[in-house]
Formats: sequence, structure tokens, C-alpha cells
Amino acid sequence: MDLHGSFHVYDTTLRDGAQQEGLNLSVADKLSIARQLDGLGVGYIEGGWPGANPKDTEFFRRAAAELDLRHARLAAFGATRRAGVRAADDPLVAALRDSGAGVVTLVAKSHDRHVELALRTTLEENLAMVRDTISHLRAEGQTVFLDAEHFFDGYRANRAYALEVLRTAAEAGAEVVALCDTNGGMLPDWVSDVVLDVIETTGARVGIHAHNDSGCAVANSLAAVAAGATHVQGCINGYGERTGNADLVTVVANLELKLDRTVLPQGLLREATRIAHAVAEVTNVPPASRQPYVGTSAFAHKAGLHASAIKVDPNLYQHMDPVDIGNDMRLLVSDMAGRASIELKGKELGYDLSADRELVTRVTDRVKAMEQRGHTFEAADASFELLLAEEVEGRRPSYFDVESWRVITETRTDGEAISEATVKLRSEGVRYVVTGEGNGPVNALDAALREAIGQAFPEVAKFELIDYKVRILDQGHGTDAITRVLIETTDGESSWVTVGVGANVIEASWGALVDGLTFGLRRHHR
Amino acid sequence: MDLHGSFHVYDTTLRDGAQQEGLNLSVADKLSIARQLDGLGVGYIEGGWPGANPKDTEFFRRAAAELDLRHARLAAFGATRRAGVRAADDPLVAALRDSGAGVVTLVAKSHDRHVELALRTTLEENLAMVRDTISHLRAEGQTVFLDAEHFFDGYRANRAYALEVLRTAAEAGAEVVALCDTNGGMLPDWVSDVVLDVIETTGARVGIHAHNDSGCAVANSLAAVAAGATHVQGCINGYGERTGNADLVTVVANLELKLDRTVLPQGLLREATRIAHAVAEVTNVPPASRQPYVGTSAFAHKAGLHASAIKVDPNLYQHMDPVDIGNDMRLLVSDMAGRASIELKGKELGYDLSADRELVTRVTDRVKAMEQRGHTFEAADASFELLLAEEVEGRRPSYFDVESWRVITETRTDGEAISEATVKLRSEGVRYVVTGEGNGPVNALDAALREAIGQAFPEVAKFELIDYKVRILDQGHGTDAITRVLIETTDGESSWVTVGVGANVIEASWGALVDGLTFGLRRHHR
Repeated sequence: MDLHGSFHVYDTTLRDGAQQEGLNLSVADKLSIARQLDGLGVGYIEGGWPGANPKDTEFFRRAAAELDLRHARLAAFGATRRAGVRAADDPLVAALRDSGAGVVTLVAKSHDRHVELALRTTLEENLAMVRDTISHLRAEGQTVFLDAEHFFDGYRANRAYALEVLRTAAEAGAEVVALCDTNGGMLPDWVSDVVLDVIETTGARVGIHAHNDSGCAVANSLAAVAAGATHVQGCINGYGERTGNADLVTVVANLELKLDRTVLPQGLLREATRIAHAVAEVTNVPPASRQPYVGTSAFAHKAGLHASAIKVDPNLYQHMDPVDIGNDMRLLVSDMAGRASIELKGKELGYDLSADRELVTRVTDRVKAMEQRGHTFEAADASFELLLAEEVEGRRPSYFDVESWRVITETRTDGEAISEATVKLRSEGVRYVVTGEGNGPVNALDAALREAIGQAFPEVAKFELIDYKVRILDQGHGTDAITRVLIETTDGESSWVTVGVGANVIEASWGALVDGLTFGLRRHHR
Repeated sequence: MDLHGSFHVYDTTLRDGAQQEGLNLSVADKLSIARQLDGLGVGYIEGGWPGANPKDTEFFRRAAAELDLRHARLAAFGATRRAGVRAADDPLVAALRDSGAGVVTLVAKSHDRHVELALRTTLEENLAMVRDTISHLRAEGQTVFLDAEHFFDGYRANRAYALEVLRTAAEAGAEVVALCDTNGGMLPDWVSDVVLDVIETTGARVGIHAHNDSGCAVANSLAAVAAGATHVQGCINGYGERTGNADLVTVVANLELKLDRTVLPQGLLREATRIAHAVAEVTNVPPASRQPYVGTSAFAHKAGLHASAIKVDPNLYQHMDPVDIGNDMRLLVSDMAGRASIELKGKELGYDLSADRELVTRVTDRVKAMEQRGHTFEAADASFELLLAEEVEGRRPSYFDVESWRVITETRTDGEAISEATVKLRSEGVRYVVTGEGNGPVNALDAALREAIGQAFPEVAKFELIDYKVRILDQGHGTDAITRVLIETTDGESSWVTVGVGANVIEASWGALVDGLTFGLRRHHR
């Protein structure tokens, strides 16, 4: 399939996505994300604005040398020439020309008021800017796409002028005119009407660039495609300014899996979940568990009621096969869990429980009893696996025996609080008494515990707490209530969640910490 | 406007939203959320499944006694009678009848395979179950809505049967047949076609219940309304199983602000941002900053490039006026509290700040600075009032001076954990050194603190901590992150919420405790 021909999947994570509040990408981050996007098979990767931003100039320089893209072409983003100068004399246009990118995506104003207010030039000169810049870059051998900024609002304000900008661009040699819903306020029917009109009036090849301010970025993109657009822009994980850009994976998955359009190379959509999560690691923005298709909750079912029906025909309970997007159906083990869901969950974790009815009963009863005391296994797979292992193997996996622990938190003379923990335990026949410090009691306990165990099991040095959640279960009693703590631990390769419960928040945290270390050690010692 | 007539805004946060992974609502949480939803002016609040779930039975019992709803009617959710029994003899149907709810939303199967596989009955008996249950509840004086589960998939599998279920329900007296995209995989055009067909074929009043698995829940809801649906279900903050339900605020805002439909009582949409965030405090699910309309980033602009144009005409850079949804345009970092809202808030607390511009500036600046460090005043009125009092009166209200505190948590020989706190402070000229015990560090600190202060101010004996919430603000750093603690204190007559922030969870808790006692003492000594 010609990825650069019949349909363009155009990613703008590295440019528009990076506008997201709190998102900050180094050049190395951008190179790493570009490799992931190429692995997904997108046709185009917009790398940034060379010339306007030194980091982006650097990105294009290093990309030319270091990136070996198999599927994607790099696109450089930039503006039309300034008013009153020749395109060839505009240093920003020169930076685009010299970026080494085969494709330049030029942003142009198509809303009359924006031309006057932001560019402070005439409508005529704006058209000339579009024409000249495209002609110049085309003459230099580059492919040019036009991003018509504020197009939909501009179309409402002055349809004739907005269309004139597109016509000018197409005549000057722009291969695509991408209609940008820059303010993100459009609704699908409106997008559809405008795209139909644009195609009929201008005959140009149309692209769509949607933002999610109305919660309709995905639907707006699909509406544009249904109306004839053959170029879709978006960002992985829906990153972007304000409410974000169209989530590219969701758009592509809908096109491929629901609308039978082939827009990615064969088989690569199955990499989407892995890639979306890998990019989230680079951006350090926690992935949204409820994200369509790729979220960790996207195919999670509270079992119980329907588990037996799910067993017979899982497709009755999911909108598509999660395998097609590289995700998995997950059954949440919760207090509603019946025997069938425990069996299914066991299977997911590699235990075939179907032959042992009594075992399943025992596990189900324990889960129910523990959930009644405040545990939750739906979010704590690792604690559930330890429980299962205990019942299957006859004893709980254990790598150390705790004798006692203590943690002190107090104000220092400067008014700051400091925590200090002492842990006494035996591991591999040796007794350890270790004191650790931290800026919180759990942090201090974690430090002491890992130092003690680390003497026998040095791999725990790699373990790190990456999330800590506290929930008071029995509201109405304030600090007297039962506390549930969820801890996420990573070994740098994967992560797992454990749960602890207790009247004392520190005791609950301790339980989750011990489970977290035990699960990690078990994984390394199997 | 008759909220229960021409158009139904139907919230299912307390039932379907609570299916979200990791979301766990106590009865008190549900009552609190119901009050917020009523404040938004929704027409219906689905409270849960009485009879099937003891917590929900309790909710309806307490709701009848404690909730004084101004706008909304409560709906009880439940299933049609079991196969082979009379509706009047089914205890679950009886629980719906006896719930005290004026509206019952009955879920029924409309997909032939689900009838066979999950209900294990015949298609005929399923129709009878729908007919009997509705007739029975109608005869008992209740309004009945039908949730046609898996409707869209069922319509594809067996259109005639799916329509027959709806027709049966309408004939038996269901006021609305809500078409549920239970698996969430629909796209807007498909929804539109089906809704048109249903209305034409059955003549029933149609509702829509959408999930976000294709990233189109909002657009699907709008497509249904455009096709004639006059009842929309959704959840605040888009809570719900898997990828969530349709975000009710986004749907309603699109309807009111973009499609000129009046669906909420006049003026209440302006409460939406505040309410969405307040509900997030109760659920303890961190609000998504990129959430359409109400997200903290939804109207955040990276300034610079367009700042001057934004100043001249902000509407060129936003899809609607954020004031209409109670949100704010933000040009620079963190600016949630504008001057106007500080003034309004002050007025609410009995301070007329309108005459003193400088004071408002000072308070606004402090709030901004503190929110940037992790405070939230949205949910902590009492801490805000103390701050305001400090600025207005020139000094912070204070009834004691803390010298130092320390808390120890350790395992006892029986394996249980115990906490012991020592507090040193001066109050009314006397120095106190008091040790308190508790089943958690905050509990122990609270005990010691109240015992020490209680010598000078005996009324603190009446004070009680009734809620304690912890949120880790900077995910990705585990226990190293900044912690925010919200504490609710009561004196038996009313209650107030205070906030504390710190790298150390105990330090954050201490701050909130001290504010809580100070606020209570101030109230008794004014």
C-alpha cells in the first residue's frame, strides 16, 4: 500500500501535541517518540517548527542523521512568509526549506479577522503570502500541505475568503489543504457540511485537523472522512493544547476496525496499545485508564453477573476484539465476582483452575471475605496473584519474615516534618535491623525495607514506587475509619499494583509495600 | 420550564458511573453527589439498584429522609422480573416498588442472543417479563423508563425482535425507551439511522445511553438527539465502566450553547465547572485537566504568540465564552481564582470585598500562589475563610501556638499497629505537653491536639473528624510526591472542610487538623 498516497495518517504529537500544558519534550524524547510513531505505521510525522524553535531545528538535524524511518515521512511545520517580503528572503521559510524534511506543512490564516488582527495585513497580501511560499517550496522540490488555521470559524465569518485561501493554496501546488478546527468547537454535522462544500467548490484534496473542545474531535475527524477528506491529523493519546487534539489511535482504529478503511500497513494497529503506553512513558503523562481502545480499563469488565455469558461468547460484551489493538479483556475481581470470573481471572494469570472446583470455591470465598474487610482486587492484580499462588501452592510466596517495624514523624526545628523508620526482619537466615529516612512515613518504611531485603536480594534496588493511593473506606468516622492503600511498583520493565488494608494507614501501607516487594521478587525468582 | 417533560437530562453517575474501575462510593458520597447534581439542575438522578445492593437500598432510604431536591427526581434502577414468576412476587421488583423513588428505570434485554445466553429464557418470555414488570410498577403509581440493554448490537442481530421489545415496553406504559449502546462501539451515523428507524417504527419516546468505547459517546448522544431523542443519559466527568459513559456536562453544554436547546434550568450551566470538580473531590478521582468545557486546561492558552490578539478579541481564540460554563480563560499558569470569584466567595462568607480592590488583589494572588503549591480552596471553604480573615483582619485567627509535634507508629507484639503522638503547644499563656494514642498517626495527633487545647477551650471535646481524604498530586513519583489532605470536622451542628499540603502526608494532615480546630474555635468565639 502506498502510505503517502491514498490516505494520509498524519501525526502532529511532536508539534501540536507538545502544546499540552505540562508536556515538555527534549530532542531525545522527540526522536524516541518518532520511532514509536513509525512503528505504528503512520504516514507522516510532523516534527516541529525548525527556525522558530531551536529545539526543533536540532530535532530535524538529528532526525536526518539518526532516524531510520520505515513507514513515515517527516514533515516540517512553519508559517507562510511574512507580509511584504519575498518567500526566498524570509529566514523562517529558508529554515523550512533547509530542514531536510521532504514535506512542509504551512500554516496559513483563512479567517479574515485573524488576518487583520494577528497578521495585521490585508486579505490580498495574505493570499499572496500563501501563493508565494508554496510556489517557492515546491520549486525547491518539497511536498507542501496547507494547514488552514481557524478554517471552520473563518468559513462562518467569510465563506468566500476562506475558500479563496484554499483555492490559492491548491493552485500554487499544495497537495493537501487541511481544515483546522483550531478552537475545537465544531460538531460533526457542521464539519461534514463544510467538507462537502470545500470539496465541491475547490476540488482540492482535503485534510482534517480537529481539537476536542466539544468532546467531538474523533467524531469530527470521522465526519470529515465520510464527507471525503483523505488526510487525518491527530496526536497519540490525544495530546494537545487545552482539551487536546483528536486521538489518532482512536480515529485510526475506528477507520480500520469499524469502517473498513485500510489506513495503516497491515498488522501494525496491533502495536497501538503498546506504543500509546510507551509514548506515555516518554512524555511522563500518566496514561488515562479510560482512554478508548488502548486504556487499561478499556476492556475491563466487572464480572459477577455476566461472567458465565462472557465465557460462552466474549464478543457479546465487547465492541471489538481487543487483540486487534494489542489490548486485552480484563476481568475485574471484585466482591461481585462469582466462581466463573475467578476461573477466568486465574486463566489470565496462567493458572488453570477449571479442574479443581474446591480450590475455586476457596479462592472465591477468601476474595469475598477480604473485600468485605476493605481489600479490592480489581485494581490490585499482583495481590490477587499472591493470594492465588498461596492457595494453589499451599503457602504464601515469602522471601523475608518481618519481626517488627516502627516509624516516627516529627517536626524539625526548621518546621519541616521528617520521617524515620526502623525495620527488623530475617531474610535468607540473617537478621537485619535497618533504619531509613524519608519525607513521609511510607517513604521511610519503603527505604528501610528495601535496604534490609536488598542485602539478600540485590535486585530490589531496581524496584521503585511509582504510585501511591489512599482511600478511606468507611466515611463518617474520619481517621478512625478503615484505610485502603494501593501501591504501584515498577522494576523498570513492567509495573504491578498491590493493596493493603488496615485501621491504621501506615499498617495498610506496610501491607501493600510488603506485597509489592514479594510480587517483584517472585517474578524474578520463578 | 418543566424539567421532567420536554427534555430529560438523566444522570446515572450513582449507578452506571460507579461501575468505573477504582471508583467506590459510600452512601454518604452518593448523597453528597446527588446534592451536587441537583444543583446542576438535572431532571433525573439514578440512585442505584435497591434490593440488589444493600448500599443502594440504604441510599434510597436515606435519600427519602435527607435529600431535599429542588430540580431532580430520583430514579431507582432495576431489572425486569425473573423468568417464570409474577412481577408482584419477585422480591427485586418489590424492592423497586418500595424504594420510594417516583421513577423506576428498568433494564431489559433487547438483543436476542443475550436473552438466550444471559437470561436463559425464551424471546417470548422476555417480552412478557418486560410487559408484566412495567404494568405492575405503573399500576403502583410509578413512572417507568426502559433501558434497552445492548440495543444497538441487538438491532443489528435481530432488528424485528429489538423493536418488538421497545414496542412492548411502550404499550405497557414505559414513558421512555432508552437505547443503550452497552458495549459502546457505535458511531454517530449509525446511531442516527437507528434512532430515526425506532421513532418511525414504534412511535415511542426515545432516550440515548452512550458509552465512550469508540471515543464518540458525546457525538453519539448528539446524533441521537438530532434524530429525535428527547432523553439523554450520562455521567458527570464521564465516569463509567471501561472507557466511561457519555460526559453529561459536555453533552448538555453542546446542546445548550451550540444547538440552542434549553435542557437545564436557566443559569445553572454556569455551575457546571464547580460541580464537576466538587464531585471529583467526593469520588477522589483526579479530574482530567483536558476534560472538555470544565477541565482546568480547557481554556488555557499558551500566551506569547497571540496574547495581544486575544486581548483585543478573546472570542477569536475560544469556541465559546468559558463564563457560560463557570470556567475561566487562563493566559498564564494557574489562574483558576479570578478576582470576581474571590469577591463572590467573600460575599458568600459574609465579607464585602467590593470596595477594596487592593485587598481582592492580595487575596487572589495568595490563592493563586497556594493553589500552585497544591492547595485547593474549591473544596475547603474553612481554610479559605481563615485566609480571608487573615487578610481582612491583619492577622490569622489563632488560639494556640504549636512548639513541636511527633508521632510514632509501630507494630505491637500481637502484630497490630498502634500510633502515639506527642504535641507541645501554648494556649492562653499555658504550655501543654500531651500524648495521645490512636489507630493511625493522624488520629493520634488529633487526640493529642484536642486534649491539649481542650484544657483552655473545653468545647473542642464536641469536635469530631468525620472525613479524611488524601490525594497524591504529582503522580509518577510515588511517595515522594506532594500530598494534599482534606479534613472535614463537625461540632455536631454543622461541618467544615480544611486543607493541608506537604511533601510529608503527616505534615499535610497536621496543617488541615490545625485549620479545622482553629476554624471551629473561631466560630464559637465570634
